[in-house]
Amino acid sequence: MDTKFLSRAIELARESISSGGGPFGAVVVRQGKIVGEGTNRVVPGSDPTAHAEIVAIRNAAAALGDHRLSGCELYASCEPCPMCLGAIHWARIERAWFAASREDAARAGFDDEHFYRELALPANERKLSMVRALAEEGLSPFELWRAKDDRAPY
Amino acid sequence: MDTKFLSRAIELARESISSGGGPFGAVVVRQGKIVGEGTNRVVPGSDPTAHAEIVAIRNAAAALGDHRLSGCELYASCEPCPMCLGAIHWARIERAWFAASREDAARAGFDDEHFYRELALPANERKLSMVRALAEEGLSPFELWRAKDDRAPY
Repeated sequence: MDTKFLSRAIELARESISSGGGPFGAVVVRQGKIVGEGTNRVVPGSDPTAHAEIVAIRNAAAALGDHRLSGCELYASCEPCPMCLGAIHWARIERAWFAASREDAARAGFDDEHFYRELALPANERKLSMVRALAEEGLSPFELWRAKDDRAPY
Repeated sequence: MDTKFLSRAIELARESISSGGGPFGAVVVRQGKIVGEGTNRVVPGSDPTAHAEIVAIRNAAAALGDHRLSGCELYASCEPCPMCLGAIHWARIERAWFAASREDAARAGFDDEHFYRELALPANERKLSMVRALAEEGLSPFELWRAKDDRAPY
């Protein structure tokens, strides 16, 4: 852990505001070097997924030419939301550091804490309605996938 | 709910495989029309966040020029993973439909079910190490944000 990377994430969060983004920044680090940076571009980019961590992970993966960021660490100005936490897992990032908490984000008007609570509920108690259908038909892509000799698992 | 949209998501999942993507597809629908489609591009795009649902949401938001997809529904060939479920929440999508389950995905070699279990654990029992630091410094972006008169909350 090097506080300079966390300070850089916080600096990015501050800079983001002046360019119309949300107050969030993140960096991905490998072997002591920054390989990807990101700021929140949700509103200016018309992209609800453009959280700082997602942007930093996408930039790092593009720079390294690899969807796996094994051996990388992520530094975020604020505690990652459930979406970003999921992305950290899929990227195989091994450690994450953050400065502000989800409660701090809630006090600034962001819904991270609310979504954490929603996701912890059983599916039938969540506000979001999620329904399963065509269960049989839904298996066909996996059957095709398993039959493909050169498939690239991840 | 219109099964033709769910069938389209499954069709996209099947097509994705032949172009090197993972076996997943999704569509975002508003007022009976598809406004965004996506397939899994994780490996071919070197992007761990490029799940079908994320790609479909990004495409729909770009097409509509709005980070909010209120009034939209999402149809996915497979149950959304925690990352995608977070994205659905942030996009303000109100209903989601899926065909295959997370268990089906696990049987095809994907880690969705594993990540669902990880995320349900208390932070200190997860494999991913997440540590907080610079808590005071981390508040400064939110202070700047609150002081900005023309901030765009989301």
